Amino acid sequence: MADKPSIPKGTRDFTPLEMARRMHIFDTIRTIFKIHGFLPIETPAMENLSSLMGKYGEEGDKLLFKILNSGDFKGKLTDRELTDTPAGRLGSMISEKGLRYDLTVPFARFVVQHRNEIIFPFKRYQIQPVWRADRPQRGRYREFYQCDVDVIGSNSLLNELELIQIIDEVFAALGLKVVIKLNNRKVLAGIVKMIGEPERMTDITVAIDKLEKIGMEKVKAELEQKGLKPEAIEKLEPVLKMMGTTEEKLDFLEKFLKGSETGLNGLAEVRKLFVYMEADLPGAAVEFDLTLARGLNYYTGSIFEVKSAEMEIGSICGGGRYDDLTGIFGLEGVSGVGISFGADRIYDVLLQLERFPERSELDTTLLFVNFGEQEVQHIIPILGRLRESGITSEIYPDQVKMKKQMNYANSRKIPYVALVGEQEVKDGVVTLKEMESGNQEQLTPAQLVEKLSPAK
Amino acid sequence: MADKPSIPKGTRDFTPLEMARRMHIFDTIRTIFKIHGFLPIETPAMENLSSLMGKYGEEGDKLLFKILNSGDFKGKLTDRELTDTPAGRLGSMISEKGLRYDLTVPFARFVVQHRNEIIFPFKRYQIQPVWRADRPQRGRYREFYQCDVDVIGSNSLLNELELIQIIDEVFAALGLKVVIKLNNRKVLAGIVKMIGEPERMTDITVAIDKLEKIGMEKVKAELEQKGLKPEAIEKLEPVLKMMGTTEEKLDFLEKFLKGSETGLNGLAEVRKLFVYMEADLPGAAVEFDLTLARGLNYYTGSIFEVKSAEMEIGSICGGGRYDDLTGIFGLEGVSGVGISFGADRIYDVLLQLERFPERSELDTTLLFVNFGEQEVQHIIPILGRLRESGITSEIYPDQVKMKKQMNYANSRKIPYVALVGEQEVKDGVVTLKEMESGNQEQLTPAQLVEKLSPAK
Repeated sequence: MADKPSIPKGTRDFTPLEMARRMHIFDTIRTIFKIHGFLPIETPAMENLSSLMGKYGEEGDKLLFKILNSGDFKGKLTDRELTDTPAGRLGSMISEKGLRYDLTVPFARFVVQHRNEIIFPFKRYQIQPVWRADRPQRGRYREFYQCDVDVIGSNSLLNELELIQIIDEVFAALGLKVVIKLNNRKVLAGIVKMIGEPERMTDITVAIDKLEKIGMEKVKAELEQKGLKPEAIEKLEPVLKMMGTTEEKLDFLEKFLKGSETGLNGLAEVRKLFVYMEADLPGAAVEFDLTLARGLNYYTGSIFEVKSAEMEIGSICGGGRYDDLTGIFGLEGVSGVGISFGADRIYDVLLQLERFPERSELDTTLLFVNFGEQEVQHIIPILGRLRESGITSEIYPDQVKMKKQMNYANSRKIPYVALVGEQEVKDGVVTLKEMESGNQEQLTPAQLVEKLSPAK
Repeated sequence: MADKPSIPKGTRDFTPLEMARRMHIFDTIRTIFKIHGFLPIETPAMENLSSLMGKYGEEGDKLLFKILNSGDFKGKLTDRELTDTPAGRLGSMISEKGLRYDLTVPFARFVVQHRNEIIFPFKRYQIQPVWRADRPQRGRYREFYQCDVDVIGSNSLLNELELIQIIDEVFAALGLKVVIKLNNRKVLAGIVKMIGEPERMTDITVAIDKLEKIGMEKVKAELEQKGLKPEAIEKLEPVLKMMGTTEEKLDFLEKFLKGSETGLNGLAEVRKLFVYMEADLPGAAVEFDLTLARGLNYYTGSIFEVKSAEMEIGSICGGGRYDDLTGIFGLEGVSGVGISFGADRIYDVLLQLERFPERSELDTTLLFVNFGEQEVQHIIPILGRLRESGITSEIYPDQVKMKKQMNYANSRKIPYVALVGEQEVKDGVVTLKEMESGNQEQLTPAQLVEKLSPAK
């Protein structure tokens, strides 16, 4: 036999078991998006390279999968160009298309391209694979699904509330306990302004993030080492020491940020969101977390991040508000807010915590054993009745040894097997065997349908 | 503003309306696959080029989208190789991966690669996009979905029956009248053997296919022109003239094929399938059609094709039995049978015949008008109750003019609008307006949930 075939590294096949689990996640998410009135879109796997290049930084450009032009891709190039152009640039000369790298840029492109058909505010979701030429490693793939939900064309904080509700509902439906962290870029901007270091937001946030781990003195040393002015560090210290409830933190910051309009605006947004949540999500674990600095280069307001409260793993969902998503394609001034669910990490959490449902929607309920042509003729209409009643049923297609057929039922975890032999055909009944207990009973087709009908 | 962004030719964006329609098709198909016990798999968009090349003929190789190797793709090549190698061959030297061209080859690869985990007979379905560098034209795309269902590892004709049942159920559920055409490659092989032209199956089938259009004399002339021996044409004439019911045609062929074991085996298969169908599908329009010659180069037994009975359009579903799908990857002797639904054509038929459901599952039922902060606070918990009860509801996120909010409801075809002003807050009620009639009534939140709850 030839070598066992394989697939490109960093890509995956999904077997029926994995598909059942993935569909459990995606169906749960989709159902909740739907109930909130979000609408699906899909964009093509291939985008014009010109739509993708320069959108993800220099490093991102290198991670784009380029699609070689069809036909004579080198026809227009001189020998000199072929041999002397560096691979990076030559790649763009022989490829006009690339695989999408995320769902955000295609969404921005979609909004601009279809702006006359879209009804704003546009509440859209999109669940599709993306591709990155990253070095594959455990938990990092070259093809993986993203699951994005955004509202574009509205400044209202009700959109933020809705996304938090969605997060809360999705993880509750999946049976996972999570902590939702909330921050606001404007608050961070206010803080760095008030301490006189408006350009150092990233350094400062990184330092704050380490507070719990390395302690106040080391954080201060690090900030000093990074060139922060001593008086700035001194001013920052009370912020770092800020303790207490969300309410107390917000009160503290209210005083601290006096003098920064942006900071106070951000704080008002955070406050309002907590008021909204009191009305609707008194039980949700939402924390105001100043150290949350996700996507600081494009988020302009609220920032979200979700972590499992039950195991150590990176963020399983996150997002924020961006004031100029579509600007890259020439449409200015459209504000949006969105989050993205990390399906692969959620999968890992559910698997490790054993929270996948034991039986899947996809499982077969009943297998008819195949004893031969006469019996099959009798079974065919019964099978039809069962399926019409929503009972997933099969007949073993080949007339082989009983043992092989029972093995099939066992391997497929089919809970009921129906035996229809000569006598059953004569009596117009079916012998139903429950696999776990081994119990058998004789039923008419109508009784069989009644017994196995899914609970409504 | 910059140029309007665009997508590669032959690819498509799907707007929410198109997505709702596509999901109607895919969900219908998936539900029916599921009830028959078929299980989903997915394979990566990128396959190793070595898995794809040579599987679709020379023409097919040219239609593969190749993915440029990441990093220094030309590093290992000499200048001479770069300049002197023809584009076709050079493409394979700088690309190791390609986008899948269909779902059949990846499925064969999957079966061989996972043969130790798979439970046979393996009933699988797969709904994923494929890519072909074809010249785009009306109805032909470079990215399109295939929707395949196969049973592999069983010779039983019960599998063919099941696929015919699935076809019947899918199109019934979609509200489309179809004709299912059935043929058998072995019968065709028997006929060409019996007339002494065993190598001319394609020519002969093509000619038979034209009978209705051009008449007997012209068909005979064409066969003669193609070099068929006159005595072969003479022997074939009664087959061409064969008329009557399926039963009569089969009886005729039974005599004609005496002497061809293969032909008689094929005929027995067709007969048995019709017997099965009498037990289960007395109403289905299944025709035995000798001119059906789909996929003659790989199908080895049954051949299926489905056409709309209501409009002229090519085949909307088709397939057949293949005895050696996995042989290309080194696993011999695994028989399978499968069909593929043409989602794009089915979409076109449903659209043209106006058979898409008027309201989609995705549509929002109720929109709350936003009159301001006070009212919003009151609405948030009511929204939560509605959504918990499965009623898709939204609040207009921004406090803008009533007219703009009503326009949103109209454009989104939302049938109910809820008005909650100062008085409603005070009275603890909601004013519900039915958009079509304009009727208004005041309801408590509980009455609102009751009224809008989806019928169970």
